[in-house]
Amino acid sequence: MGTIVTLLTDFGTADGFVGAMKGVILNRSPGATVVDITHDIAAQDVRAGARALAEAAPLFPPGTIHVAVVDPGVGSARRPLLVSGEGQRFIGPDNGLLSLAAPRGEARVLDREELFRGTVSSTFHGRDVFASVAGHLAAGLPPQSCGGQAGDWQRLELPRPTVEADRLEGAVVHVDRFGNLITNLERGAVGDAARWQVALGGRHIGSIRDTFSDVAPGQWVAYIGSGGELEIAVRDGDAASALKQQAMETQVLLRPCEKR
Amino acid sequence: MGTIVTLLTDFGTADGFVGAMKGVILNRSPGATVVDITHDIAAQDVRAGARALAEAAPLFPPGTIHVAVVDPGVGSARRPLLVSGEGQRFIGPDNGLLSLAAPRGEARVLDREELFRGTVSSTFHGRDVFASVAGHLAAGLPPQSCGGQAGDWQRLELPRPTVEADRLEGAVVHVDRFGNLITNLERGAVGDAARWQVALGGRHIGSIRDTFSDVAPGQWVAYIGSGGELEIAVRDGDAASALKQQAMETQVLLRPCEKR
Amino acid sequence: MGTIVTLLTDFGTADGFVGAMKGVILNRSPGATVVDITHDIAAQDVRAGARALAEAAPLFPPGTIHVAVVDPGVGSARRPLLVSGEGQRFIGPDNGLLSLAAPRGEARVLDREELFRGTVSSTFHGRDVFASVAGHLAAGLPPQSCGGQAGDWQRLELPRPTVEADRLEGAVVHVDRFGNLITNLERGAVGDAARWQVALGGRHIGSIRDTFSDVAPGQWVAYIGSGGELEIAVRDGDAASALKQQAMETQVLLRPCEKR
Repeated sequence: MGTIVTLLTDFGTADGFVGAMKGVILNRSPGATVVDITHDIAAQDVRAGARALAEAAPLFPPGTIHVAVVDPGVGSARRPLLVSGEGQRFIGPDNGLLSLAAPRGEARVLDREELFRGTVSSTFHGRDVFASVAGHLAAGLPPQSCGGQAGDWQRLELPRPTVEADRLEGAVVHVDRFGNLITNLERGAVGDAARWQVALGGRHIGSIRDTFSDVAPGQWVAYIGSGGELEIAVRDGDAASALKQQAMETQVLLRPCEKR
Repeated sequence: MGTIVTLLTDFGTADGFVGAMKGVILNRSPGATVVDITHDIAAQDVRAGARALAEAAPLFPPGTIHVAVVDPGVGSARRPLLVSGEGQRFIGPDNGLLSLAAPRGEARVLDREELFRGTVSSTFHGRDVFASVAGHLAAGLPPQSCGGQAGDWQRLELPRPTVEADRLEGAVVHVDRFGNLITNLERGAVGDAARWQVALGGRHIGSIRDTFSDVAPGQWVAYIGSGGELEIAVRDGDAASALKQQAMETQVLLRPCEKR
Repeated sequence: MGTIVTLLTDFGTADGFVGAMKGVILNRSPGATVVDITHDIAAQDVRAGARALAEAAPLFPPGTIHVAVVDPGVGSARRPLLVSGEGQRFIGPDNGLLSLAAPRGEARVLDREELFRGTVSSTFHGRDVFASVAGHLAAGLPPQSCGGQAGDWQRLELPRPTVEADRLEGAVVHVDRFGNLITNLERGAVGDAARWQVALGGRHIGSIRDTFSDVAPGQWVAYIGSGGELEIAVRDGDAASALKQQAMETQVLLRPCEKR
């Protein structure tokens, strides 16, 4: 089988953008297996793209090439990168998009213009730079032929929770397709889940449960989600809509259960 | 070529969920051909998922593995299943989702934890149970190694039409992407299409035609759709929007044409 | 590797339509590589489909089979076609959809019913005619076995710009996923970009820049887009929403810069 090349973009699918990228990759490496991760990252939302990439990429076989393009700075001086890390290869702009998936990766700058499409559009590096280099890489070109060492490259600055012995304060950092609220409080910070009572923007949620069905339909529930973070949902409902305010950034506060 | 593994979910594509499932499958079976049926089933709409699976699955080659996840009960006691039927294999929750595609299939319970991902999230069996087992199956594991016999498994209860000699009464059971209204009146119940006059929620539609272009643009038209069911549409328009009420469950009544 | 078969439709992904087409293709040619271009062309928007196909198709390897279905006339007398051109093969309805991608292609009428599915639905030729023939073609059937010469086939009539020595007048012909406005003024007509000042529906936009980052965030910018046409955008914003009128068809006027 051919090399696996995944695609993650904010291009949507109403235009021919994604198809153009696939064509360029398959033209350079007709045996490649092209796999869509998603093209529906919110437009220009680098953080959401970085989260989705970090969620999906580690599950792919070693050697997979991940092409990620959420790139508000296309055509500016931001560098195009190839990052090698976690046994995989990542291609995308140097704007933090790749940094959650390969935090300790080594980066090269894609500076070999002969690997690009003949004419590089200043607004579509996804096709002319990233997909083109990915196609060559999938066809067997070694990473060191894609460009020189990049040195430091950009990492995402994420809001950090406050972690104290009897108080955890975080925030909602993502809303998923079901309206579930994902927070920046990770399993490691939470520790013994039975210790805590959860509040969301002042609303009492209760203790941390195993899963949705531990509460009645329509009830709020807190649990450790599939990404290892504290999440808050409404069973069989949509928490983001049920909340009477903007969900993103809403404060999440954990206090110890009262002793009896 | 590798085994074909299809995916049908209600996960949408704004997050990394679907990519994570693909990674797990390709990790266990790098030569598999992963094919998206859809990820845009309405959230937690088991019936819509079951319909789409039944529409697409029979057209795939024998031996195809279909992974379907519309699973409001994830993490509860509902069983994860492998159903063999119609020459194909279906993996998903025991909530009726698989029952329209393989009504007479034989089911096994996925109870071999060594086939799951190391840690099973209570909210993402799509990744940790269903995709993981599908990957092993695609790599050649025989079905009998996936778990023991399930015995009875859950079937969907669908609204049934009233079928009398000179009166057919059904309902709209699905609205497709074009706003066309699909009913539960099947070709077999309708019989000789020329016999009937169609009414939708009291609105006179007329006789059953062959296709859209048998009426003028903007006109209502009834016809036997691609799934073998009576459908009602507005030519070059959107019937669901044109209807002045909720389309789902709207009554559809067929009466014999008047004799002259 | 197998023959590449791309799909472009307006079927959306909430139903099983697209999965059904993939099943039919893979059933006839299990080794084919099926690639989604898009299924989110606006319903029945033949022009948008033709644009997306023309944008993506030329980038695929020679011999690729492109199946395109935006087909308001399904079931009527419009002919199903196989067009060979630009080193590639295109399958779809004779309504102009294929004409931008292969303007000088030679067309055959798909008239060999033994290549269709056993029963052809009058509303789903995507599955029963186009995917079925594509599957046979991917499995090695030569084009001349798919049907006889079509002679003339339908081309899209596109609005043409006015090109004068010191005045270019065009219009917005497409709005992309980011709200960027694509016009019908092509690079060749624009010539020396530095010569012109751009106005959009009476709004002064300024001179033609290289890319978004040549203006400040929130500012309007005109540039030659990735398809070689003049585009107008708001940097880090959504031009279609910012415009206080319907974007499509809005006049775009280029006048020479004033001499100083």
